[in-house]
Amino acid sequence: MLSPTLTIQNKDFSYPVFIASNCLRDHSLWSSLISQQQVFIVSDENVAPLYLEKFSNALTNKQITHTILACGEKSKNLTQFANIIDHLAENNYARDCLIVGLGGGVVTDLAGFVAACYMRGVDFIQIPTSLLAQVDAAIGGKTAVNHPQAKNLIGCFYQPKAVIIDTNTLTTLDERNFRAGLAEVIKMAVSFDENLFGYLEQQMAQLLERNQKVLQYIIQRCCELKANIVTQDEKEQGLRSLLNFGHTYGHALEKIDNYQRYLHGEAVAIGMVIAAELSVKDKLLSVSEQQRLVHLIASAGLPTQIPSTLNQTELNKSLLLDKKIKNGKLSMVLLKKIGQARSTIIKN
Amino acid sequence: MLSPTLTIQNKDFSYPVFIASNCLRDHSLWSSLISQQQVFIVSDENVAPLYLEKFSNALTNKQITHTILACGEKSKNLTQFANIIDHLAENNYARDCLIVGLGGGVVTDLAGFVAACYMRGVDFIQIPTSLLAQVDAAIGGKTAVNHPQAKNLIGCFYQPKAVIIDTNTLTTLDERNFRAGLAEVIKMAVSFDENLFGYLEQQMAQLLERNQKVLQYIIQRCCELKANIVTQDEKEQGLRSLLNFGHTYGHALEKIDNYQRYLHGEAVAIGMVIAAELSVKDKLLSVSEQQRLVHLIASAGLPTQIPSTLNQTELNKSLLLDKKIKNGKLSMVLLKKIGQARSTIIKN
Repeated sequence: MLSPTLTIQNKDFSYPVFIASNCLRDHSLWSSLISQQQVFIVSDENVAPLYLEKFSNALTNKQITHTILACGEKSKNLTQFANIIDHLAENNYARDCLIVGLGGGVVTDLAGFVAACYMRGVDFIQIPTSLLAQVDAAIGGKTAVNHPQAKNLIGCFYQPKAVIIDTNTLTTLDERNFRAGLAEVIKMAVSFDENLFGYLEQQMAQLLERNQKVLQYIIQRCCELKANIVTQDEKEQGLRSLLNFGHTYGHALEKIDNYQRYLHGEAVAIGMVIAAELSVKDKLLSVSEQQRLVHLIASAGLPTQIPSTLNQTELNKSLLLDKKIKNGKLSMVLLKKIGQARSTIIKN
Repeated sequence: MLSPTLTIQNKDFSYPVFIASNCLRDHSLWSSLISQQQVFIVSDENVAPLYLEKFSNALTNKQITHTILACGEKSKNLTQFANIIDHLAENNYARDCLIVGLGGGVVTDLAGFVAACYMRGVDFIQIPTSLLAQVDAAIGGKTAVNHPQAKNLIGCFYQPKAVIIDTNTLTTLDERNFRAGLAEVIKMAVSFDENLFGYLEQQMAQLLERNQKVLQYIIQRCCELKANIVTQDEKEQGLRSLLNFGHTYGHALEKIDNYQRYLHGEAVAIGMVIAAELSVKDKLLSVSEQQRLVHLIASAGLPTQIPSTLNQTELNKSLLLDKKIKNGKLSMVLLKKIGQARSTIIKN
């Protein structure tokens, strides 16, 4: 049987992360992981036709129902949350049921929030199928839905029982979403791991061809880096904020754009460029390292500039509702050098 | 300054519980407890006219807004939750804000759920003003809203920063709600503390006159007993289920009655009588101890019988959605003797 690639050790309990090509079809993995009788699967219109039936078939003699969300951030809201809760209640799902999130970050964030709140918490397994979800959303226990005023405004911290990452699902991911996922990979590298950054510079062509070995390596490394941080700071009180490099402006961009123009990773790519510029202005980061970052982002086919049509006043207003504001001061992550992020207070 | 009456020690952190007459007006207590600049108060139509202004006035130089709920379980729903979140977002409440629940269990449960989920968790102070909330809802970190299918179906575990119990607020509590609160006091005594049970038998007249000393003693004792259990079992995985004596049928009764006829405590009173009958049938409890319990419940002016008009089929159906069902089996708390509850599996 497949062994866990990583084990995430939290204060109270640990859970396994499996990273392998084609593990989604590994029946023995599922039968050993899933003891629950009632299983509810959240997926979306892209992922469900490809993987839902295969996965459901691997689970025998269980009560399985599912919901299939429309794709995109618009599905990640309190109404969908309430719809799923209604479904679970109407179908007599009990406290010992299992919720499975099979899809990208929208699916796993929403499914996790449902699992956290249904009957004050039921078991949850994440099967992230997008690169973004595999390298970012899968580790750390953040669950959430969006609010018209801000992304991820409603949610809580809730750890899954297991995370299954099948790198083969990335072969069906569309090009734009794949590249958007690379933004979070670049973020992890530039914030915490100079070696990974160098590896990405060298292997970008292979990566864009979705070489499975390269993918497994970078996903594992990102999960390790993230796990190392979040297990030291489960509730985002200090260290964990360093994971937000590029996210302050990234979230604000997504918001004023009403989540239309940019995918999350694309907004983060631009956010990283802005944060790197601020890092140079603050005399933290050298211009040459800033350029290396901008070059890597561009080589992944990601945007590096705010469109000139964008309203700067709106952008600044949007920053005010960022969760990272304390006592009216905006805390932002800047770069000291490649592989080393640090938190700084920006006066407003 | 007032010292904490109790300190609740959880795995990760501890919080103080203050129990005293008139502590709600103790400005020095509030100034030492509340460092946050943005304060949002949840209260209800009964409590707000009596205490909201006094409490708000004690907090100087802060951004304070509030919501006042209609009284009763009907306010404890996902719509109200969403309305409060909207208000917080529109008023730019930041992650370092404070949510205060000033009222009965409906108010503190809803306010706690908002605090748990707004920006994945902000600070929360509970000021329970009903006897029920003071002896039960205040300790243990359970937050929730109701769902049409079941009470408290949506919620999570979230610990407050402090709990303030002003026993003087009980002087304005209406007779029916006061007596309903006594049901939870009796539950704690009959489940865990024979001495407290004896004290209640002796002091019921004083208690019904709302003698402040008697009230402080029983509230403190109930909080101690509950804290002792919940700190050993934060997420209700074993021991904590013993707190549910009388609640399996109690919740089912409330539900099929659509939360109209019975207050929670009244439903629990009847639920305790049913559970005691089942305990005698199971040859666990003696008839004389069963009668002592029924007598104490009656002496508190609480109901001891299911009305004959009630549909037994509906009641059994309602039990099926109880959170305490595992693998199709209903786990129920029975009595071995007065002061000693135990969990039993009831075949369905």
